Amino acid sequence: MRVIVGVDLGGTNVVVAGIPEDGGAPVALASERTPVRQGAEAVVALIVGMIERCIAETRRAHPDWEVAGVGIGAPGPLDRARGVVIFAPNLGWRDMPLRDRVAAAVGLPITLDNDANCAVLGECWQGAARGARFVVGLTIGTGVGGGIVLDGRLYHGAQDVAGEIGHTSIDLNGRRCKCGNYGCIEAYASGPAIAARAVEGLEAGATSRLADYVHGNLAALDAEVVYQASREGDEFAQEVVRDTARFLGATVANVVNTLNPEVVVICGGVTQAGEQLFAPLREEVRRRAFKPAVAACRIVPGSLPGTAGVYGAVATFTMQAWGGGAA
Amino acid sequence: MRVIVGVDLGGTNVVVAGIPEDGGAPVALASERTPVRQGAEAVVALIVGMIERCIAETRRAHPDWEVAGVGIGAPGPLDRARGVVIFAPNLGWRDMPLRDRVAAAVGLPITLDNDANCAVLGECWQGAARGARFVVGLTIGTGVGGGIVLDGRLYHGAQDVAGEIGHTSIDLNGRRCKCGNYGCIEAYASGPAIAARAVEGLEAGATSRLADYVHGNLAALDAEVVYQASREGDEFAQEVVRDTARFLGATVANVVNTLNPEVVVICGGVTQAGEQLFAPLREEVRRRAFKPAVAACRIVPGSLPGTAGVYGAVATFTMQAWGGGAA
Repeated sequence: MRVIVGVDLGGTNVVVAGIPEDGGAPVALASERTPVRQGAEAVVALIVGMIERCIAETRRAHPDWEVAGVGIGAPGPLDRARGVVIFAPNLGWRDMPLRDRVAAAVGLPITLDNDANCAVLGECWQGAARGARFVVGLTIGTGVGGGIVLDGRLYHGAQDVAGEIGHTSIDLNGRRCKCGNYGCIEAYASGPAIAARAVEGLEAGATSRLADYVHGNLAALDAEVVYQASREGDEFAQEVVRDTARFLGATVANVVNTLNPEVVVICGGVTQAGEQLFAPLREEVRRRAFKPAVAACRIVPGSLPGTAGVYGAVATFTMQAWGGGAA
Repeated sequence: MRVIVGVDLGGTNVVVAGIPEDGGAPVALASERTPVRQGAEAVVALIVGMIERCIAETRRAHPDWEVAGVGIGAPGPLDRARGVVIFAPNLGWRDMPLRDRVAAAVGLPITLDNDANCAVLGECWQGAARGARFVVGLTIGTGVGGGIVLDGRLYHGAQDVAGEIGHTSIDLNGRRCKCGNYGCIEAYASGPAIAARAVEGLEAGATSRLADYVHGNLAALDAEVVYQASREGDEFAQEVVRDTARFLGATVANVVNTLNPEVVVICGGVTQAGEQLFAPLREEVRRRAFKPAVAACRIVPGSLPGTAGVYGAVATFTMQAWGGGAA
């Protein structure tokens, strides 16, 4: 058996695991805080150390397995051909030659792809979109990322920038987004945007127990608290979740009419909201998008929380390095 | 030389021409009014007659050329595998087996594809997007159609519904569209929508000579009149064109961030507005979309007015029937 090390580099955590090429269970799964403030050198050193520990642990557990390479998912935009992270605001990086820096230390073939692309490809290979050939995914966390899989392969566009669905506008005069555009879905449905909408409502006098969850400190209110209160019956929290479904529904309807996918997979913390989110989301898409396109499309939560990124990073490795068919 | 007959079936006109397989000048180009009110049989009979006249004229002009087949572009949604127009409201058709009906009368291999797809593929093959591999097009007329060419081939999605960019929303609470969605770009930038916005402005008291162009009969005001008045310096007409550019700019920015194309080509009557439309459109996209994606993308008017559809219908024939490389 060959095993590939998957690396999911985020602004908060680095997740590393060995994944057998047949897509079996992860070996030596580990997660560490990303030392963003200590600078790029510290982040690279952490990644290299985690890869080396993963390889050692994998070899100990499976002495007959071959560690064949490393796939890295990193925040973009990226230049895949040069293996460079062009710009990653959450890491404070510009033009960072991540692939070659890690390769020099590890001595294995390495590939690099966008983190949201990896998460969506991971869901295609071993998760909620398994078996589908045309898949669009959204990863909802600090931001809203996107990935597009067409005919079983990641779609990168002319310059590796494709898939930035989080920065498509659903209201041309809407909320200003950090990217400079107006009305991006990220400005409504990212974790911080969900929390901000909840706080706005509370400050405008909404009746809710949400403030109790954070002992009156609204600055501590995050999206997870909204999902929890919603599950526990708080009506205003449920309204915030329904609004999120309505915003996401407009975006997903645009995606469905444009790309006519078989599956739209929604990944990230927002899946904790469960059917309170997904039922109205599906209804909103049905209301907006073309009937044959809606009928052809399942809208599902991701099923690999925490590991979609490493599975997908490994799948991008097998595709880029071996031209192959992991996904 | 082999020649293929291209048919562009619209709700207003049927255009037919023989196109040499090398993409040379059309032979026997003809256009006739679509007899919509006389029913589907009359439309099929007209198409068959036009194809037969085109074949006869081509053989007369070029006795040594072989007429190898027919490519038809028709309003969708379509089922390409069965050659059926599923639903075409402007023609009043449902589940019309157009391909086989025409094939039975003409006795040549025939392929069917969506009309907007054909127009965009035509611009890729012999028009403004020539040489580009990743192209998104909008066709602006009675409605707003879309087509997506990825890596040189039309993208159809899971169920042949892909490319309906005219029915992506730029304002989730915006103008109701005939498709049932809200805020579709078609509801702002189609010919009738441009005219409707102009009339709304005039009725709200805008100072303009637009009414003079139609002798005070605002019901006769169409988009062409708006473009003409705009070119001739009418400030309110120019405002309507600038608003159109702003709406289209939001849609094109969404397309650029999602698909990262090399070219966005805008076809149809709206190109008559020239740089008065395209200059603010490019500026709006630059303001909204990701810099590397904007830098990679040309935004251009179509260069095959009236024939993009037949060129593209022929290109879809060579691709579908011969698996080939016309585009």
